[in-house]
Amino acid sequence: MPKRYANNPIFTPASIAPSRADFEVIGVFNAGAIQYGEEILLLLRVAERPLQNDPEHYLAPVYDVEKDEIVIEKLAFNHKANSFADVRVIKLESGARTTSISHFRIARSKDGYHFEAEAKPVIAPSSRYETFGIEDPRITQIGDNYYINYSAISELGITTMLAVTKDFASCDKLGNIFHPDNKDVTIFPKKINGLFYALHRPSISHFATPDIWIAQSPDLLHWGNHMHIAGVRQEGWDTTRVGASAVPFLTEHGWLEIYHGADENNRYCLGALLLDAERPWVVKRRSIRPILEPETTYEIDGFFGNVVFACGAVRTGNEILIYYGAADTSIAAAMLTIDEIMASFQEQI
Amino acid sequence: MPKRYANNPIFTPASIAPSRADFEVIGVFNAGAIQYGEEILLLLRVAERPLQNDPEHYLAPVYDVEKDEIVIEKLAFNHKANSFADVRVIKLESGARTTSISHFRIARSKDGYHFEAEAKPVIAPSSRYETFGIEDPRITQIGDNYYINYSAISELGITTMLAVTKDFASCDKLGNIFHPDNKDVTIFPKKINGLFYALHRPSISHFATPDIWIAQSPDLLHWGNHMHIAGVRQEGWDTTRVGASAVPFLTEHGWLEIYHGADENNRYCLGALLLDAERPWVVKRRSIRPILEPETTYEIDGFFGNVVFACGAVRTGNEILIYYGAADTSIAAAMLTIDEIMASFQEQI
Repeated sequence: MPKRYANNPIFTPASIAPSRADFEVIGVFNAGAIQYGEEILLLLRVAERPLQNDPEHYLAPVYDVEKDEIVIEKLAFNHKANSFADVRVIKLESGARTTSISHFRIARSKDGYHFEAEAKPVIAPSSRYETFGIEDPRITQIGDNYYINYSAISELGITTMLAVTKDFASCDKLGNIFHPDNKDVTIFPKKINGLFYALHRPSISHFATPDIWIAQSPDLLHWGNHMHIAGVRQEGWDTTRVGASAVPFLTEHGWLEIYHGADENNRYCLGALLLDAERPWVVKRRSIRPILEPETTYEIDGFFGNVVFACGAVRTGNEILIYYGAADTSIAAAMLTIDEIMASFQEQI
Repeated sequence: MPKRYANNPIFTPASIAPSRADFEVIGVFNAGAIQYGEEILLLLRVAERPLQNDPEHYLAPVYDVEKDEIVIEKLAFNHKANSFADVRVIKLESGARTTSISHFRIARSKDGYHFEAEAKPVIAPSSRYETFGIEDPRITQIGDNYYINYSAISELGITTMLAVTKDFASCDKLGNIFHPDNKDVTIFPKKINGLFYALHRPSISHFATPDIWIAQSPDLLHWGNHMHIAGVRQEGWDTTRVGASAVPFLTEHGWLEIYHGADENNRYCLGALLLDAERPWVVKRRSIRPILEPETTYEIDGFFGNVVFACGAVRTGNEILIYYGAADTSIAAAMLTIDEIMASFQEQI
């Protein structure tokens, strides 16, 4: 059973100052995580929106490429073509807007539970692929480089952008590594037989379901040989969508991947895949039951409730400390052992 | 004005024998084209279905990976969850089936107009990404190799597969170069400043429209740095979807790309993009009016009417001979000069 940290959540919107005085933070969630020297770093996804002080309009934040700043669009509540039914996205007569815009901020900890967050974003929207924000970072260490991949959201779709840093002070954006729509990318931390690998989750408009795929790369910038490895299942907790969550860990059993799955009620749980050490496109085991599911108040109630969703985890020996977004609102931590994760498999697939 | 060949169409379903006695050919269209030695080769997309001799069921063709053959699935007309409204796709309670399955066949010509088609497929479905068939091939010559990319259709989505041949007798499949959903990929015929480039058309499930993107590659197998280059337009003939058609030609003005666009009535026309010779992600000009649009009976009436759609064209000096699918049924040819295409631009964008 996962051991949730007693003082969860470790970040809530109230614990983070907005980036500007006329904005409010509505979510701190889905953080990347990595051991960096003596510290554990979280790369927080901070979701903000303008203070809503206009009774007749929703004030939507949009990054303006030419002005290089976030501008506020006024969307009339009483315009019949505007739909406010989804708390995350406003549908317009033509196109859509997100209700909030996200950037990333660093938080540092010596013990993995007590964190101090920086006041300024370390990565923020800066391109036409990021006008609706940047979301759900994962961090993969390869040598001295820390590669950060994240979802870039805009009217052009949802791409996966790659950035790199050595010091988490300055980050270079390296371009879109996956075309839209693709989310939930996580890069393996070393080459396997001469190639890098990444799990990814295309969103499909014809025929298929949102499933987990794998791709290979000679250089982390160019990706190919896409293979489908794990789909949604007919019954249970991951019937509607699945996607990779944390960066895979190499264990004596193979690569252990913590993934998320949602059911038809949009209830998000975490499970695991065991991938072959040498052929990571081969799924050897898969969780029958979730390894973490929404149970506490902070996981059940929030901006988008009944969600546990991880982007990062830190391994120390047999223990894996998972940092996960709770209800698209806050960040919580839970400890699981590799043995506990292995126990979720129960049977070979 | 395009000069249509007087004896169009050059292929109709009646001119091609089915691959098995219990099948019928319902379309020969969307062919790749290339100059190969003294001949012009077409890579025909041949769409077949089982002879429909069961009054109570639609007999749907599906490639079975384990049996390595096309099997026939019986879909009850009177099952209320089965929808036959789209002539191309049958929607089921869970999932979908295509009404036909396509393979590729070679046809050869000395003069570009009189072709002889081979009796057997040169490329046919052979993987789990191709269970609903293979569609819309483009051929790019690079050195002695002829690279063929095509849409692979299955319940896993629509991927882009790459194959290579030297002789058009045996072809090696090299894997999926773009994840689902992605169609209308066309690879530039030479490296530009050390990298290969391809145009592609992601199908988007959030926010965006089906637009033309570009990607780069060091080796044709792995692709990255995806950039959006040309979207649908607010008014005119390409308001709903656009996609690359023929392999680009390098002219004194830049790369000339013949693309297709559809409007809200699913009327498909051809137009052109002029891309910068050194920076092919820069669109210098775009057709105001189509360079070819459905006008003749064989373009207006057919399996899916009001469609002209090209996958291949052959250039000789200032003349471009476009081979195009007409009404998703047959193949026609039309000659345009580069000057005529340039005249469609009219104004700088």
